[in-house]
Amino acid sequence: MYKDILVLGGDKRNINLANLLCEEGYNVSVFGFDDMSLFSSKAERRKNLSDGVESCDVVISGLPSTIDQITLNTPLCCEKIYFYSLFDLMKRNKIFLGAKMDDKLLHMAEVYDVQVVDYFKREELMVLNAIPTVEGALEIAMRETECTIHSSNCLVLGYGRIGKLLAKSLKSLGANVYVEARSKSDLSWIKAMGYKGINIRNVDYGIGHYDLIFNTVPHTILKSPSYSRIKPDCVLIELASSPGGFDIGEAEKHSVRVISAPGLPGKCAPGSAAVYLKDTVVNILNEL
Amino acid sequence: MYKDILVLGGDKRNINLANLLCEEGYNVSVFGFDDMSLFSSKAERRKNLSDGVESCDVVISGLPSTIDQITLNTPLCCEKIYFYSLFDLMKRNKIFLGAKMDDKLLHMAEVYDVQVVDYFKREELMVLNAIPTVEGALEIAMRETECTIHSSNCLVLGYGRIGKLLAKSLKSLGANVYVEARSKSDLSWIKAMGYKGINIRNVDYGIGHYDLIFNTVPHTILKSPSYSRIKPDCVLIELASSPGGFDIGEAEKHSVRVISAPGLPGKCAPGSAAVYLKDTVVNILNEL
Amino acid sequence: MYKDILVLGGDKRNINLANLLCEEGYNVSVFGFDDMSLFSSKAERRKNLSDGVESCDVVISGLPSTIDQITLNTPLCCEKIYFYSLFDLMKRNKIFLGAKMDDKLLHMAEVYDVQVVDYFKREELMVLNAIPTVEGALEIAMRETECTIHSSNCLVLGYGRIGKLLAKSLKSLGANVYVEARSKSDLSWIKAMGYKGINIRNVDYGIGHYDLIFNTVPHTILKSPSYSRIKPDCVLIELASSPGGFDIGEAEKHSVRVISAPGLPGKCAPGSAAVYLKDTVVNILNEL
Amino acid sequence: MYKDILVLGGDKRNINLANLLCEEGYNVSVFGFDDMSLFSSKAERRKNLSDGVESCDVVISGLPSTIDQITLNTPLCCEKIYFYSLFDLMKRNKIFLGAKMDDKLLHMAEVYDVQVVDYFKREELMVLNAIPTVEGALEIAMRETECTIHSSNCLVLGYGRIGKLLAKSLKSLGANVYVEARSKSDLSWIKAMGYKGINIRNVDYGIGHYDLIFNTVPHTILKSPSYSRIKPDCVLIELASSPGGFDIGEAEKHSVRVISAPGLPGKCAPGSAAVYLKDTVVNILNEL
Repeated sequence: MYKDILVLGGDKRNINLANLLCEEGYNVSVFGFDDMSLFSSKAERRKNLSDGVESCDVVISGLPSTIDQITLNTPLCCEKIYFYSLFDLMKRNKIFLGAKMDDKLLHMAEVYDVQVVDYFKREELMVLNAIPTVEGALEIAMRETECTIHSSNCLVLGYGRIGKLLAKSLKSLGANVYVEARSKSDLSWIKAMGYKGINIRNVDYGIGHYDLIFNTVPHTILKSPSYSRIKPDCVLIELASSPGGFDIGEAEKHSVRVISAPGLPGKCAPGSAAVYLKDTVVNILNEL
Repeated sequence: MYKDILVLGGDKRNINLANLLCEEGYNVSVFGFDDMSLFSSKAERRKNLSDGVESCDVVISGLPSTIDQITLNTPLCCEKIYFYSLFDLMKRNKIFLGAKMDDKLLHMAEVYDVQVVDYFKREELMVLNAIPTVEGALEIAMRETECTIHSSNCLVLGYGRIGKLLAKSLKSLGANVYVEARSKSDLSWIKAMGYKGINIRNVDYGIGHYDLIFNTVPHTILKSPSYSRIKPDCVLIELASSPGGFDIGEAEKHSVRVISAPGLPGKCAPGSAAVYLKDTVVNILNEL
Repeated sequence: MYKDILVLGGDKRNINLANLLCEEGYNVSVFGFDDMSLFSSKAERRKNLSDGVESCDVVISGLPSTIDQITLNTPLCCEKIYFYSLFDLMKRNKIFLGAKMDDKLLHMAEVYDVQVVDYFKREELMVLNAIPTVEGALEIAMRETECTIHSSNCLVLGYGRIGKLLAKSLKSLGANVYVEARSKSDLSWIKAMGYKGINIRNVDYGIGHYDLIFNTVPHTILKSPSYSRIKPDCVLIELASSPGGFDIGEAEKHSVRVISAPGLPGKCAPGSAAVYLKDTVVNILNEL
Repeated sequence: MYKDILVLGGDKRNINLANLLCEEGYNVSVFGFDDMSLFSSKAERRKNLSDGVESCDVVISGLPSTIDQITLNTPLCCEKIYFYSLFDLMKRNKIFLGAKMDDKLLHMAEVYDVQVVDYFKREELMVLNAIPTVEGALEIAMRETECTIHSSNCLVLGYGRIGKLLAKSLKSLGANVYVEARSKSDLSWIKAMGYKGINIRNVDYGIGHYDLIFNTVPHTILKSPSYSRIKPDCVLIELASSPGGFDIGEAEKHSVRVISAPGLPGKCAPGSAAVYLKDTVVNILNEL
């Protein structure tokens, strides 16, 4: 059983994460934060990296683990922490829980013989993160339109994790919900849940009908001929990672408003996002 | 049948109202707006008040009709329009549709023998206005807290128009919903709808449990001993008109956050609010 | 405080009621049941009426109190119990909780100087009874049609207690819900809740569209010209008390199926109905 | 494009299927039904099997295709139709749409060089069939218990197609819904949808709490120690195919009521089931 944990950098979510892990009974050390006042009294501040790594079985980084692929992501700390220093200290039996690690970083871990788990790839976390993503999307829709979601015509592009929860929430607030999907079984689900299914081939047809269009698919769904027929006051909200489902050039050409909304969980609900992180970390530790 | 209407001042909602009444087939004149570009081509601009009143059967003011009790509420017009001038021109068979008219104004109308209807007192409008009020309240709750509405503990004070719709929406977004009410039949409804009912006498008990507290009652519900036990990160949202249900002094003393949110329909959803206005005006005209 | 209660006759609901009142800490006696095996051990069987009345402050009858206006309604007992005998014994300071008492019975109570409360007139009980009524109506609709409620077109006549809960349940199961109402504020509520409102004057129009029609109004809503246009496989379900909202003669003439469903709470969910009774009785006792 | 279809036997659903395919513009012949009065006028009755097969491109059997593995399932026809006769006539370019065909039958089709599609294996049909299955399960639960689904404690074993829709419907009717699942991502979904997740290892714990237990998993989930602690008036409803999730022997030993409910779509909603069949058949024909 892994009980000794070092939370190493990250943003406000990792401060919450450290506090929540303390409450669960883990021995939590922290490093990579200049201001310790936000941590609960049980989290122990480490003087330096070496001291921190020595005391722990598991190191948890921020989300994402790195921005420059060389140092850890430590937005709340002046000091730079290099991966090669960390991995050098971690060798033998310590585990690194990272997020959004690329191949280069994974290769470095392999070279240093450090066991790595990408917690951001856990399905249970991705599902839970859909909750604050959807609330963030609703908040944007409420703020950016002059009409209520109630009685509005909403199109959701894609029926994955976010699409499923978003369609449910829009409908429960009184919207007329249309969902674009590709597979016949998804279209059956969409019918069963009470939404109107739109086959991907027909998405262009009737596009002038919507007040809000949400994209959840990471590749272009809405092609050029559609933009000229979108209602002038319709708002397009992009929830997928780049390049997303909208053609920004075409949208601009036709003065269609597109709002890009990446990383909603950390922005809209860092408190809830930290709870989901904690649950996922506990699951990982129990499985190790 | 009344078909000739003068829209006389008001904010953006009245511009939308004029356009929507044109679409419904009414002959619409407008006066009290400096910029005519926002009106549909069918709305006729009148040169002066006398010209406008002469052409119409019904005069519709903004919401509210007046702020100073002497002139009409015309925020989008430089010129002042006095009620006595209007009522003097209106005598005989013309009807004034106003909003939030006080006794003094009603008395003046009586003196000038002008028939008056306060459209803001219509029950159907008050019910419909609860829709954007609730969406506005949700938007505030999403923006002002670090957690999702999903899984949060929400207390709604009062089970009138806004309380009913707010409880429904909060529950549909996944909150644990508690509703305070006074009457036993309201508490039965609350149980039937799947919320947890809190008798007004017990509202203090368990107050430390909530993440969000919404008030919909226009007099103080939450008394002084409660504020010391409210969670530090709980947000109180005031939806009722003054004085509202919270004791601001006590809240400040205990550093409890209170957000006052009056007039949400016009602020959050002027488009939908105008549609509700139009529906209500049409109902009134059909009943005259 | 009234703590000594005699449950005097009634059906299975009153057996449950007696057991539930025991659990709440009341001293419960029973009379008017031949088989005592269904009562909890704490309920005390009384040898005769006089013994039973003497021991108690409050007498609770079955629902309804009487069928013949002379004797108490005691379907689970061979012996007849006459109201005049009961009231004669009850004189002075004892309270009779009855249900559906007519003027004659109320007058008799007055003559004998017995204080009477009709628990069935309590608004909180009527609201709660709407829950099993709606579930019973859904059960009938599921059993009597060849199609699912999901995707069906349902018309609800009336938007009172039962109409409100029924519309909510039908919609939540995926039906297209239309609600007929008379007042403009009800029609606003219907729109706010996401149903399609039908003005009572237009109910005939589009009547051929429905798969299920539920009536909740105690007077005829659906007039003769409608029946010839109702779909052959449409089912009409009558939930209101006689004469109800359907014209049975016209329905028969056009071979339209009408299912009469009175008294659903006692039939479909005697267990829940008893809990509601108990809650209501406790409310009454606390208010006395 | 395949336009000429022979509906060959089956129950009432296939009569509806033939009528619905006529409405969609297909040329429909039928054989294997003694009473032709239930078919729409456009469906053409064939004199004998050979005549029927000759006229068509596609043969659609009942659901299931066979009960004895030798003859077709023709419950509404006296005559026996042998698979070898059918397949012998079908050779060359005709397609057989069957349901629940076992390996022996598939092998026979291969020998006769007949192209076979099992329409019952189509995901879109299985999803849609979950709708009437859930309504049938609700109907049973309403009928077989003395309490309302509203406020009851319901456990759903399994979170597949039926589990997902059943949990949604139970919650929307006001039940407290608990869902047992195995995977962490399913448990995240269960939380996101607002149900209480029960890890399969903990299902035994708290089993005495439920009023209704629904199984949707085709292997035993509820093991022997649980049955002794189930509430006396709890009802267990089996929705999965044999052997199902309950231990019938243990249930009987402890007088726990188990209701087996196979094949609900055809029993509870043959009309809707036929529409789903038609949609699926049209999908298959368009893909051929």
